[in-house]
Amino acid sequence: MKIDGRSSRTIWADPADRAVHVIDQTALPHAFTVKRLAGLKDAADAIQAMTVRGAPLIGVTAAYGLALALAADSSDDGMERAIQRLTATRPTAVNLRWALAEMRAGLMPLPPAARTEAAWARARALADADAAANETLGNHGLTLLAALWETRRAEGAACLNILTHCNAGWLATVDWGTALAPVYKAFEDGIPLHVWVDETRPRNQGASLTARELSWQGIAHTVIADNAGGHLMQQGLVDLCLVGADRVTARGDVCNKIGTYLKALAAWDNGVPFYAALPSSTIDWDIEDGRAIPIEERSPSEVSHIAGAGPDGQVIAVRLTPEGSPCANPGFDVTPARLITALITEQGIHPASTEGLAPLRSRRNPS
Amino acid sequence: MKIDGRSSRTIWADPADRAVHVIDQTALPHAFTVKRLAGLKDAADAIQAMTVRGAPLIGVTAAYGLALALAADSSDDGMERAIQRLTATRPTAVNLRWALAEMRAGLMPLPPAARTEAAWARARALADADAAANETLGNHGLTLLAALWETRRAEGAACLNILTHCNAGWLATVDWGTALAPVYKAFEDGIPLHVWVDETRPRNQGASLTARELSWQGIAHTVIADNAGGHLMQQGLVDLCLVGADRVTARGDVCNKIGTYLKALAAWDNGVPFYAALPSSTIDWDIEDGRAIPIEERSPSEVSHIAGAGPDGQVIAVRLTPEGSPCANPGFDVTPARLITALITEQGIHPASTEGLAPLRSRRNPS
Repeated sequence: MKIDGRSSRTIWADPADRAVHVIDQTALPHAFTVKRLAGLKDAADAIQAMTVRGAPLIGVTAAYGLALALAADSSDDGMERAIQRLTATRPTAVNLRWALAEMRAGLMPLPPAARTEAAWARARALADADAAANETLGNHGLTLLAALWETRRAEGAACLNILTHCNAGWLATVDWGTALAPVYKAFEDGIPLHVWVDETRPRNQGASLTARELSWQGIAHTVIADNAGGHLMQQGLVDLCLVGADRVTARGDVCNKIGTYLKALAAWDNGVPFYAALPSSTIDWDIEDGRAIPIEERSPSEVSHIAGAGPDGQVIAVRLTPEGSPCANPGFDVTPARLITALITEQGIHPASTEGLAPLRSRRNPS
Repeated sequence: MKIDGRSSRTIWADPADRAVHVIDQTALPHAFTVKRLAGLKDAADAIQAMTVRGAPLIGVTAAYGLALALAADSSDDGMERAIQRLTATRPTAVNLRWALAEMRAGLMPLPPAARTEAAWARARALADADAAANETLGNHGLTLLAALWETRRAEGAACLNILTHCNAGWLATVDWGTALAPVYKAFEDGIPLHVWVDETRPRNQGASLTARELSWQGIAHTVIADNAGGHLMQQGLVDLCLVGADRVTARGDVCNKIGTYLKALAAWDNGVPFYAALPSSTIDWDIEDGRAIPIEERSPSEVSHIAGAGPDGQVIAVRLTPEGSPCANPGFDVTPARLITALITEQGIHPASTEGLAPLRSRRNPS
């Protein structure tokens, strides 16, 4: 996608320099900076500190992280230790484990001396595959948005109103995004759009990342408090909800950023279609019931404090809560499949149910 | 209620000094300061800028504001102008209009020269009545909490977990609070309690006010992002939801702080009882359908910026959104009566329905 008119991905490698570069997403929207990751520790820290975030981008960063680790130690033990270290960074994201399993499967059979070069190539291939999958996902989603827009236009609507939660955009992936890929495709296609952007407390990925990337692409949008979406749906101001996913179960339960479930309930109560968009690698075929997904409990300081641009433009963290009042911070919730209209994947649009996902399950090919 | 062990109301008058004092709630939780209101403008500004907030406290502040206005001009015209000015400060709160109607009904028949003294007395009577009503409401709510605690205790629970949204506590009223009055009564009664406090974006009245007053009273609580409540209910960590109301319709639809509707949906979906607590003056008998309630659209800057305590303790406003990304800020939403277990009032606990509220309607006695 574009930053000030120039095309860019969110992660790019320089194997000659044995380094990977990523956009530092913790600095957005107030500053645009690029971080250089020169080893396993840099990559693991980048995932843990959310310099990079978004399930697909985490997976690709972990793959590159493994390439960086192998440059230092390409033994079996070294590889296993690196995989363990990278897996521990974010327990909820299934893509992370998926990407590392892909890497291990391809690299373990090779002699240690050949692993580093092969790792760079495989990580790059994963990145390219992610970008391609999301573009395809976007095209599938476009058919859905185009059909909905035809209906709304016939009813006299001026534009299609989409509500999204968190950031499942370009910045959450290598390119295109998941939930936002259909939006970008629809925008390219000339469909008039407006996006309601949930700010997405506590880390405000909506207010800081989704708003930023939509404004970079020139797409009309409005930031709202997470509390506002239900009211907007009651008022008929939302035509569809479109979110990403951190993990989807075999029956279609969607684990996504905390608060997603509340929006799905409101969509259900108001007859608004609710879609989750995700690469099929996000589906965890080993889990049926979403309640079995471990939910990451993040630092209370993400609730008690928030960072923003101060009067001089410098980023300052301020305390919101009284000293001594404890905070809790579950990072994700699970939206039951019954509240989800369908899942948009690179392999087409599928009902969120065991039967609906059956074609994906049978087509699954662990590389 | 208590501040550092000392009893205090949120508003108190000094008629001899022709002034009213209020706790400046915009400075909480980082600083405790008292503001002196010396005239109509001060009172109107205090309501508009949310120095005071909460439907009951707004009503009492407006009543005192009228007393301050009459000291300067006690003519019919002067009184009408002051009522108009005060009514315009917050369009959603019905108590504001109710309190001013009460004042007008009592004062207009008097000769202008007698109005000022009478206004002080009536405003004081309204404040006392508000405190007494909320204490009674708290006692009604206590019966409910006590019964629920007996059930939970029998099931082996360690405490009763209550979720609340925004601040419907002591700080929203003259004393005791609405939603928190039953909590304070249950705490006095020795019921072990824990309160989940929604931070309540965009103005964070939960994180700043509810957390502050609960910690002043010594009640266990945890601040959470508004997004977290649905997940906590799915996990069985919420025994009941207890919120306030800015306006209730004749059929029991509840207009309250934006986001209340989302929590009510989650409570419904998880079989968690959902109560709104309010003085019966909050019921607008002229409106049946909550969708007819005008919703205040507040400043976008409340979404784009937030204030908190900086590194040196000073309060700083920081920008959260990218420059140029618009924000929208509806202040309230309407929870349909069907999602509400019951309404707790000073006149007892009533089902949220036309029939359920009928006893209150027939008992209604406009002063």
